[in-house]
Amino acid sequence: MAGSGGTPCASCKLLRRRCTAECVFAPYFPAEEAQRFAMVHRVFGASNVSKMLQEVPAAQRADAVSSLVYEANARVRDPVYGCVAAISFLQQQVSHLQMQLALAHAETSALQLQLQDERQQHILVQNAHHQLMLQEACLKQESMWT
Amino acid sequence: MAGSGGTPCASCKLLRRRCTAECVFAPYFPAEEAQRFAMVHRVFGASNVSKMLQEVPAAQRADAVSSLVYEANARVRDPVYGCVAAISFLQQQVSHLQMQLALAHAETSALQLQLQDERQQHILVQNAHHQLMLQEACLKQESMWT
Repeated sequence: MAGSGGTPCASCKLLRRRCTAECVFAPYFPAEEAQRFAMVHRVFGASNVSKMLQEVPAAQRADAVSSLVYEANARVRDPVYGCVAAISFLQQQVSHLQMQLALAHAETSALQLQLQDERQQHILVQNAHHQLMLQEACLKQESMWT
Repeated sequence: MAGSGGTPCASCKLLRRRCTAECVFAPYFPAEEAQRFAMVHRVFGASNVSKMLQEVPAAQRADAVSSLVYEANARVRDPVYGCVAAISFLQQQVSHLQMQLALAHAETSALQLQLQDERQQHILVQNAHHQLMLQEACLKQESMWT
Protein backbone atom coordinates (compact mmCIF):
# COMPACT_ATOMS: atom_id res chain seq x y z
CA MET A 1 0.00 0.00 0.00
CA ALA A 2 1.17 3.50 -0.73
CA GLY A 3 2.33 6.27 1.57
CA SER A 4 3.22 6.12 5.28
CA GLY A 5 6.55 4.39 4.62
CA GLY A 6 5.00 1.36 2.81
CA THR A 7 5.98 0.07 -0.67
CA PRO A 8 5.52 2.87 -3.20
CA CYS A 9 2.89 2.34 -5.90
CA ALA A 10 3.90 1.39 -9.47
CA SER A 11 3.65 5.03 -10.55
CA CYS A 12 5.82 6.51 -7.77
CA LYS A 13 8.32 3.67 -8.23
CA LEU A 14 8.64 4.40 -11.97
CA LEU A 15 8.74 8.18 -11.49
CA ARG A 16 11.08 7.80 -8.48
CA ARG A 17 9.11 9.91 -6.08
CA ARG A 18 7.80 9.48 -2.56
CA CYS A 19 4.43 7.74 -2.51
CA THR A 20 2.24 9.68 -0.06
CA ALA A 21 -1.12 8.73 1.40
CA GLU A 22 -2.70 11.21 -1.03
CA CYS A 23 -1.14 9.61 -4.14
CA VAL A 24 -3.90 9.56 -6.78
CA PHE A 25 -2.35 6.51 -8.52
CA ALA A 26 -1.74 4.26 -5.48
CA PRO A 27 -5.27 2.70 -5.26
CA TYR A 28 -5.20 1.72 -8.95
CA PHE A 29 -1.57 0.94 -9.68
CA PRO A 30 -0.13 -1.24 -6.87
CA ALA A 31 3.63 -1.90 -6.91
CA GLU A 32 3.21 -5.36 -8.49
CA GLU A 33 1.42 -3.89 -11.53
CA ALA A 34 4.37 -1.92 -12.88
CA GLN A 35 3.63 -2.85 -16.51
CA ARG A 36 0.06 -1.54 -16.26
CA PHE A 37 1.26 1.89 -15.15
CA ALA A 38 4.18 1.94 -17.62
CA MET A 39 1.65 1.48 -20.43
CA VAL A 40 -0.62 4.42 -19.51
CA HIS A 41 2.43 6.56 -18.76
CA ARG A 42 3.87 5.79 -22.19
CA VAL A 43 0.65 6.70 -24.03
CA PHE A 44 -0.97 9.42 -21.91
CA GLY A 45 1.82 10.57 -19.64
CA ALA A 46 1.63 10.35 -15.83
CA SER A 47 0.79 14.04 -15.51
CA ASN A 48 -2.20 13.80 -17.87
CA VAL A 49 -3.45 10.60 -16.20
CA SER A 50 -3.20 12.29 -12.81
CA LYS A 51 -5.20 15.31 -14.08
CA MET A 52 -7.80 13.06 -15.72
CA LEU A 53 -8.24 11.00 -12.54
CA GLN A 54 -8.63 14.11 -10.40
CA GLU A 55 -11.40 15.36 -12.72
CA VAL A 56 -13.38 12.14 -12.21
CA PRO A 57 -15.41 11.34 -9.03
CA ALA A 58 -13.50 8.92 -6.76
CA ALA A 59 -16.16 6.22 -7.21
CA GLN A 60 -15.53 6.18 -10.97
CA ARG A 61 -11.74 6.32 -10.92
CA ALA A 62 -11.26 2.53 -11.07
CA ASP A 63 -13.38 2.45 -14.25
CA ALA A 64 -11.47 5.40 -15.69
CA VAL A 65 -8.16 3.61 -15.01
CA SER A 66 -9.45 0.41 -16.65
CA SER A 67 -10.48 2.27 -19.77
CA LEU A 68 -7.19 4.21 -19.91
CA VAL A 69 -5.22 0.95 -19.56
CA TYR A 70 -7.35 -0.63 -22.29
CA GLU A 71 -6.76 2.33 -24.63
CA ALA A 72 -3.04 2.43 -23.86
CA ASN A 73 -2.64 -1.30 -24.55
CA ALA A 74 -4.52 -0.92 -27.82
CA ARG A 75 -2.31 2.03 -28.85
CA VAL A 76 0.89 0.11 -28.05
CA ARG A 77 -0.36 -2.91 -30.04
CA ASP A 78 -1.54 -0.75 -32.95
CA PRO A 79 0.32 2.60 -33.00
CA VAL A 80 -1.66 3.85 -36.02
CA TYR A 81 -5.26 3.10 -35.07
CA GLY A 82 -5.15 2.19 -31.36
CA CYS A 83 -8.57 1.15 -30.06
CA VAL A 84 -10.23 2.95 -32.99
CA ALA A 85 -9.35 -0.24 -34.92
CA ALA A 86 -11.69 -2.17 -32.61
CA ILE A 87 -14.41 0.45 -33.18
CA SER A 88 -14.04 0.18 -36.98
CA PHE A 89 -14.08 -3.62 -36.81
CA LEU A 90 -17.18 -3.64 -34.59
CA GLN A 91 -18.94 -1.08 -36.82
CA GLN A 92 -18.29 -3.33 -39.83
CA GLN A 93 -19.56 -6.34 -37.86
CA VAL A 94 -22.75 -4.41 -36.94
CA SER A 95 -23.32 -3.44 -40.60
CA HIS A 96 -22.77 -7.03 -41.74
CA LEU A 97 -25.12 -8.42 -39.07
CA GLN A 98 -27.77 -5.79 -39.90
CA MET A 99 -27.59 -6.84 -43.56
CA GLN A 100 -27.80 -10.54 -42.67
CA LEU A 101 -30.76 -9.81 -40.37
CA ALA A 102 -32.56 -7.86 -43.13
CA LEU A 103 -32.02 -10.84 -45.49
CA ALA A 104 -33.25 -13.29 -42.85
CA HIS A 105 -36.38 -11.18 -42.27
CA ALA A 106 -37.01 -10.98 -46.02
CA GLU A 107 -36.66 -14.79 -46.23
CA THR A 108 -39.07 -15.21 -43.29
CA SER A 109 -41.64 -12.92 -44.97
CA ALA A 110 -41.32 -14.81 -48.28
CA LEU A 111 -41.76 -18.16 -46.49
CA GLN A 112 -44.79 -16.85 -44.59
CA LEU A 113 -46.38 -15.78 -47.90
CA GLN A 114 -45.60 -19.17 -49.49
CA LEU A 115 -47.06 -20.96 -46.47
CA GLN A 116 -50.21 -18.81 -46.60
CA ASP A 117 -50.55 -19.51 -50.34
CA GLU A 118 -49.96 -23.23 -49.82
CA ARG A 119 -52.64 -23.33 -47.11
CA GLN A 120 -55.17 -21.58 -49.34
CA GLN A 121 -54.45 -24.05 -52.16
CA HIS A 122 -54.80 -26.89 -49.66
CA ILE A 123 -58.21 -25.61 -48.54
CA LEU A 124 -59.39 -25.28 -52.16
CA VAL A 125 -58.34 -28.86 -52.99
CA GLN A 126 -59.87 -30.12 -49.74
CA ASN A 127 -63.19 -28.37 -50.51
CA ALA A 128 -63.20 -29.77 -54.05
CA HIS A 129 -62.38 -33.18 -52.58
CA HIS A 130 -65.30 -33.00 -50.12
CA GLN A 131 -67.65 -31.91 -52.90
CA LEU A 132 -66.51 -34.82 -55.02
CA MET A 133 -66.99 -37.23 -52.12
CA LEU A 134 -70.54 -35.94 -51.77
CA GLN A 135 -71.19 -36.32 -55.50
CA GLU A 136 -69.76 -39.83 -55.42
CA ALA A 137 -72.00 -40.73 -52.50
CA CYS A 138 -75.06 -39.42 -54.45
CA LEU A 139 -74.03 -41.33 -57.57
CA LYS A 140 -73.59 -44.53 -55.53
CA GLN A 141 -77.02 -44.04 -53.98
CA GLU A 142 -78.54 -43.35 -57.43
CA SER A 143 -76.90 -46.49 -58.84
CA MET A 144 -78.39 -48.48 -55.92
CA TRP A 145 -81.89 -47.21 -56.78
CA THR A 146 -81.62 -47.80 -60.52
CA MET B 1 2.23 26.27 -43.81
CA ALA B 2 4.76 25.70 -41.08
CA GLY B 3 8.41 26.60 -40.90
CA SER B 4 10.43 29.01 -43.07
CA GLY B 5 8.89 32.08 -41.44
CA GLY B 6 5.26 31.19 -42.35
CA THR B 7 2.33 30.89 -39.92
CA PRO B 8 3.23 28.43 -37.14
CA CYS B 9 1.14 25.25 -36.92
CA ALA B 10 -1.56 24.87 -34.23
CA SER B 11 0.85 22.93 -32.02
CA CYS B 12 3.74 25.42 -32.16
CA LYS B 13 1.28 28.28 -31.68
CA LEU B 14 -0.15 26.69 -28.53
CA LEU B 15 3.24 25.66 -27.18
CA ARG B 16 4.73 29.05 -28.19
CA ARG B 17 7.69 27.69 -30.07
CA ARG B 18 9.20 28.29 -33.47
CA CYS B 19 7.59 26.10 -36.15
CA THR B 20 10.41 24.69 -38.26
CA ALA B 21 10.23 22.86 -41.58
CA GLU B 22 10.85 19.63 -39.64
CA CYS B 23 7.90 20.13 -37.27
CA VAL B 24 6.22 16.71 -36.93
CA PHE B 25 2.83 18.31 -36.15
CA ALA B 26 2.68 20.91 -38.95
CA PRO B 27 1.31 18.63 -41.74
CA TYR B 28 -1.55 17.43 -39.50
CA PHE B 29 -2.38 20.40 -37.30
CA PRO B 30 -2.55 23.56 -39.44
CA ALA B 31 -2.87 26.92 -37.64
CA GLU B 32 -6.65 27.09 -38.22
CA GLU B 33 -7.23 23.77 -36.42
CA ALA B 34 -6.16 24.95 -32.97
CA GLN B 35 -8.98 23.11 -31.21
CA ARG B 36 -7.97 19.78 -32.80
CA PHE B 37 -4.44 20.04 -31.43
CA ALA B 38 -5.59 21.38 -28.04
CA MET B 39 -7.69 18.23 -27.63
CA VAL B 40 -4.87 15.70 -28.26
CA HIS B 41 -2.48 17.81 -26.19
CA ARG B 42 -4.94 17.80 -23.29
CA VAL B 43 -5.40 14.02 -23.36
CA PHE B 44 -2.06 12.61 -24.59
CA GLY B 45 0.34 15.54 -24.16
CA ALA B 46 2.23 17.08 -27.09
CA SER B 47 5.44 15.25 -26.19
CA ASN B 48 3.73 11.82 -26.27
CA VAL B 49 1.91 12.63 -29.52
CA SER B 50 5.21 13.70 -31.07
CA LYS B 51 6.88 10.44 -29.97
CA MET B 52 3.95 8.35 -31.22
CA LEU B 53 3.97 10.09 -34.62
CA GLN B 54 7.70 9.59 -35.02
CA GLU B 55 7.30 5.85 -34.36
CA VAL B 56 4.77 5.56 -37.22
CA PRO B 57 5.75 5.53 -40.95
CA ALA B 58 5.11 8.95 -42.54
CA ALA B 59 2.45 7.49 -44.87
CA GLN B 60 0.38 6.41 -41.86
CA ARG B 61 0.75 9.54 -39.73
CA ALA B 62 -2.43 11.19 -41.00
CA ASP B 63 -4.41 8.07 -39.95
CA ALA B 64 -2.61 8.01 -36.59
CA VAL B 65 -3.52 11.67 -36.01
CA SER B 66 -7.17 11.03 -36.94
CA SER B 67 -7.42 8.15 -34.48
CA LEU B 68 -5.68 10.14 -31.72
CA VAL B 69 -8.05 13.09 -32.29
CA TYR B 70 -11.02 10.68 -32.20
CA GLU B 71 -9.82 9.11 -28.93
CA ALA B 72 -9.07 12.50 -27.38
CA ASN B 73 -12.53 13.85 -28.28
CA ALA B 74 -14.15 10.75 -26.83
CA ARG B 75 -12.13 11.10 -23.60
CA VAL B 76 -13.08 14.78 -23.22
CA ARG B 77 -16.77 13.94 -23.80
CA ASP B 78 -16.65 10.95 -21.46
CA PRO B 79 -13.78 11.29 -18.95
CA VAL B 80 -14.53 7.90 -17.34
CA TYR B 81 -14.87 5.58 -20.34
CA GLY B 82 -13.57 7.60 -23.32
CA CYS B 83 -13.94 5.69 -26.58
CA VAL B 84 -14.15 2.41 -24.64
CA ALA B 85 -17.82 3.43 -24.16
CA ALA B 86 -18.30 3.17 -27.93
CA ILE B 87 -16.61 -0.26 -27.90
CA SER B 88 -18.91 -1.50 -25.10
CA PHE B 89 -21.98 -0.12 -26.89
CA LEU B 90 -20.96 -1.73 -30.19
CA GLN B 91 -20.18 -5.07 -28.48
CA GLN B 92 -23.66 -5.03 -26.93
CA GLN B 93 -25.16 -4.17 -30.34
CA VAL B 94 -23.25 -7.10 -31.93
CA SER B 95 -24.51 -9.51 -29.22
CA HIS B 96 -28.08 -8.26 -29.65
CA LEU B 97 -27.92 -8.58 -33.45
CA GLN B 98 -26.37 -12.07 -33.20
CA MET B 99 -29.24 -13.12 -30.93
CA GLN B 100 -31.84 -11.61 -33.29
CA LEU B 101 -30.16 -13.35 -36.24
CA ALA B 102 -30.20 -16.70 -34.43
CA LEU B 103 -33.93 -16.20 -33.72
CA ALA B 104 -34.60 -15.23 -37.36
CA HIS B 105 -32.74 -18.34 -38.58
CA ALA B 106 -34.70 -20.53 -36.17
CA GLU B 107 -37.95 -18.97 -37.47
CA THR B 108 -36.85 -19.56 -41.06
CA SER B 109 -36.07 -23.23 -40.31
CA ALA B 110 -39.44 -23.70 -38.58
CA LEU B 111 -41.28 -22.10 -41.52
CA GLN B 112 -39.37 -24.28 -44.00
CA LEU B 113 -40.44 -27.39 -42.07
CA GLN B 114 -44.07 -26.19 -41.93
CA LEU B 115 -44.00 -25.48 -45.66
CA GLN B 116 -42.55 -28.92 -46.40
CA ASP B 117 -45.21 -30.55 -44.22
CA GLU B 118 -47.97 -28.48 -45.81
CA ARG B 119 -46.79 -29.49 -49.31
CA GLN B 120 -46.77 -33.19 -48.37
CA GLN B 121 -50.33 -32.88 -47.00
CA HIS B 122 -51.33 -31.05 -50.18
CA ILE B 123 -49.94 -33.86 -52.37
CA LEU B 124 -51.78 -36.48 -50.30
CA VAL B 125 -55.10 -34.64 -50.65
CA GLN B 126 -54.47 -34.05 -54.35
CA ASN B 127 -53.76 -37.76 -54.93
CA ALA B 128 -56.89 -38.75 -53.03
CA HIS B 129 -58.82 -36.17 -55.04
CA HIS B 130 -57.55 -37.56 -58.36
CA GLN B 131 -58.42 -41.09 -57.25
CA LEU B 132 -61.89 -39.95 -56.34
CA MET B 133 -62.30 -38.19 -59.68
CA LEU B 134 -61.36 -41.43 -61.41
CA GLN B 135 -63.82 -43.39 -59.30
CA GLU B 136 -66.54 -40.85 -60.05
CA ALA B 137 -65.84 -41.08 -63.79
CA CYS B 138 -66.11 -44.89 -63.57
CA LEU B 139 -69.38 -44.63 -61.63
CA LYS B 140 -70.81 -42.19 -64.19
CA GLN B 141 -69.83 -44.51 -67.01
CA GLU B 142 -71.38 -47.47 -65.18
CA SER B 143 -74.63 -45.52 -64.61
CA MET B 144 -74.72 -44.71 -68.35
CA TRP B 145 -74.45 -48.40 -69.20
CA THR B 146 -77.06 -49.53 -66.68
